[in-house]
Amino acid sequence: MDRIASSPAIAAVKASLEGISFADDAATLRLKSRDFYWFSPILKAELDGKLADLIVFPKDESEVMHVAAIAARCRVPITVRAGGTGNYGQCVPLHGGIVLDISALESTVWVKAGAGRFQAGSRLLEIDRSLKPFGQELRFYPSTRKQATIGGLVAGGAAGAGTCTWGQISDMGAVLGLRVVTVEDEPQIVELRGPDIYKVMHAYGVNGIITEVEVPLAPAHDWAERIISFPTLKAAAAFGQDLTSRDAIAKKLVSVHDARIPAGIKRLKAIVPDGEAMALVMISEPQIEQSEELARTHGGVLRYARSAADAERAAFEGEGDLAPIYEYSWNHTTLHWLRADPTITYLQLRFPPGRNLDLVDWIVETFPDEILLHLEFQRRFGHVTHSALPIVRYSTRERLYEIIDALNANDVAVADPHSYLLNDAGWKRVDSGSAEFKRFADPHGLMNPGKLKDWSVQ
Amino acid sequence: MDRIASSPAIAAVKASLEGISFADDAATLRLKSRDFYWFSPILKAELDGKLADLIVFPKDESEVMHVAAIAARCRVPITVRAGGTGNYGQCVPLHGGIVLDISALESTVWVKAGAGRFQAGSRLLEIDRSLKPFGQELRFYPSTRKQATIGGLVAGGAAGAGTCTWGQISDMGAVLGLRVVTVEDEPQIVELRGPDIYKVMHAYGVNGIITEVEVPLAPAHDWAERIISFPTLKAAAAFGQDLTSRDAIAKKLVSVHDARIPAGIKRLKAIVPDGEAMALVMISEPQIEQSEELARTHGGVLRYARSAADAERAAFEGEGDLAPIYEYSWNHTTLHWLRADPTITYLQLRFPPGRNLDLVDWIVETFPDEILLHLEFQRRFGHVTHSALPIVRYSTRERLYEIIDALNANDVAVADPHSYLLNDAGWKRVDSGSAEFKRFADPHGLMNPGKLKDWSVQ
Repeated sequence: MDRIASSPAIAAVKASLEGISFADDAATLRLKSRDFYWFSPILKAELDGKLADLIVFPKDESEVMHVAAIAARCRVPITVRAGGTGNYGQCVPLHGGIVLDISALESTVWVKAGAGRFQAGSRLLEIDRSLKPFGQELRFYPSTRKQATIGGLVAGGAAGAGTCTWGQISDMGAVLGLRVVTVEDEPQIVELRGPDIYKVMHAYGVNGIITEVEVPLAPAHDWAERIISFPTLKAAAAFGQDLTSRDAIAKKLVSVHDARIPAGIKRLKAIVPDGEAMALVMISEPQIEQSEELARTHGGVLRYARSAADAERAAFEGEGDLAPIYEYSWNHTTLHWLRADPTITYLQLRFPPGRNLDLVDWIVETFPDEILLHLEFQRRFGHVTHSALPIVRYSTRERLYEIIDALNANDVAVADPHSYLLNDAGWKRVDSGSAEFKRFADPHGLMNPGKLKDWSVQ
Repeated sequence: MDRIASSPAIAAVKASLEGISFADDAATLRLKSRDFYWFSPILKAELDGKLADLIVFPKDESEVMHVAAIAARCRVPITVRAGGTGNYGQCVPLHGGIVLDISALESTVWVKAGAGRFQAGSRLLEIDRSLKPFGQELRFYPSTRKQATIGGLVAGGAAGAGTCTWGQISDMGAVLGLRVVTVEDEPQIVELRGPDIYKVMHAYGVNGIITEVEVPLAPAHDWAERIISFPTLKAAAAFGQDLTSRDAIAKKLVSVHDARIPAGIKRLKAIVPDGEAMALVMISEPQIEQSEELARTHGGVLRYARSAADAERAAFEGEGDLAPIYEYSWNHTTLHWLRADPTITYLQLRFPPGRNLDLVDWIVETFPDEILLHLEFQRRFGHVTHSALPIVRYSTRERLYEIIDALNANDVAVADPHSYLLNDAGWKRVDSGSAEFKRFADPHGLMNPGKLKDWSVQ
């Protein structure tokens, strides 16, 4: 399918916007048609140059509905975005048309003990800032907390800091409700709850515009930060596993890195001695003492300490000598490395609980130079394990898929981040109902076209 | 060893109390020399009639130190107690002397985000009541929350509601610090932190008088209560395992009962249909909807629902149509059954994660009539499993130990609750350092004598 938005159709859209803010200058089109897909050399080649015809900035849900109606009536593609922190081109418009930037939908609908409801464009950091007086916080956030929105987390994200305690966004219980606007001549509003939420979760906005997200909240802890070095990755990984398995230690982040990773990031190189592996941890402040003791039993040496108050200032105000340490974990590790070496890329790996540490050893032996592991410890379905978003030294597409095949064949499941197809990357939820729901919510097949493989308007 | 407190020694103690409150009337001596050891027919035979000579009621730590000095100088046994909710005779004075009731030491030393420090005689329910305005709560409490104290939980307890999320009191991180008074001519105050706390934890007060306990606190949730019935114990247990494994559902209690258990408790018999197994759950209120849905997928039918506000009123004010549901779980189940049938008793079982549900099947097949299981789901060392405090139909001591041996031989670990010896019941922590610490903190061997097997003054 080629660009399906004809000039007359785009002109008709513009003529119908009735004062809703939009932009079509070249700089804005370029800026708002991108996400972080360039982490992948494969996606970079495939997605560079894909542009929207028009960026529309609705200020509230009624404007969202108005734009949805125009898109439907004019048969113009519509791709939803906000922070644009995805890594698979989730919000890159493959076939032009409208990019709908919902960043202005950033109000809190309500907050009560243990739950909150937010407009989808609310940034995660700002949600946490607003929750502070209530003694509550989001259970988890990706390393892009500052830019990423709650709608984006639900529509295209997975995990992050907090996953070591609360699991992932896809887990039953992680999302309570979603409000969705359909793309029809007369758009409808649908409230999804219970298992119905999976119809639109992690669906890259192919089947409805999520306007509100209701999530359980965690009562807030004061999270202190520590960076601890270890003689080997094996020792650091054993610490990570041990700490994450300690039910009695309240924790937000347990991120363990191959020695070469901090050595390649300027600010960390100054903290972690050459040749030593590293653990980044965020721990409830009153439990730091015991966590440090646990680290010592694994051969760890404390290299950096920041109080919860100072860590919060780093996150909320950008103050301090180091970015918030979660900004060196998860996929921010890749970002820091790409700044120094644009030839590298990354993968997304899941490890089976019980065998995860053995499989780390196997990867280190099998791919000593090509894969630099950092392990993001987490709870999955009641078990402790880790995922990994390793730095991968990229040579060719063929070699990358050889590595992927070898990993998959050895029970390290790869969620391929080098495909923009919904069915390939991420969850591969064939049972998610997203295709079926698309027939209802997007009868003209206009939403983020090209992302849902093998789908066509019937 | 026989009673070692001579009448002149007791008289000397009384003469030295300098206004500290005490009692030696028969009723008080009887009342304050007992705990719930009578759950065990074996302990009942062994401990009935064991009496203190004197109950002393210090009002603060300086009075505790004064009594400790008198006990040391007069060489009179001293046994610490408070709520007296133990089940192994932890606070029964085997050799008379002083019972030190520290119930008046019930002040909060300090509270901050994520931690609090309390005098050892503080009752758990009152701690939670006082924490309410701070948006915090104790991580866990035994079913005896109303009577039990934080000092008793540390000195002789293990787990309870909250264990499904936070593990047990013995887990690293569950206790931050302990303040201990030694029993010497000139008593000392010792602050134990880190691994040193295990020297006196679960030591039944044989090696020091715990006067303050510092614990991490959980930010508070609003815990709603549900009772759900299932066609079979197997289905209920599968639900319990599934729910406890859902990292994203915030939970305080997951307690699963054989169909015969609610049938034997009047208030529950009215709620749960005959022949149906039962799950008692406490869930963060905004997540009730998803928990009920999960129960339905396991064949569960909702039988009783109480809002978090009403559940709190039941716990704090004693109001409502049903006791707080945690008062039907853990060892309260035994208490309710004993009221109807004084011939039964119980055991304490730990199940290895991964095989726990299979071992439930094995017990049901092997001991169809003698063991009535209720499964207390919990996290242990990062795994989901359950313990059990089953109702056991008691015939003889020999048969009881046949059952215990069979269970132990099949990987169901029995912590024998029919022994008052520290080394037999509970943790069997030979590495705990309690004996070594006793030589320091109790040089005359006066503290709770007879509980630490094979120990003698050197």
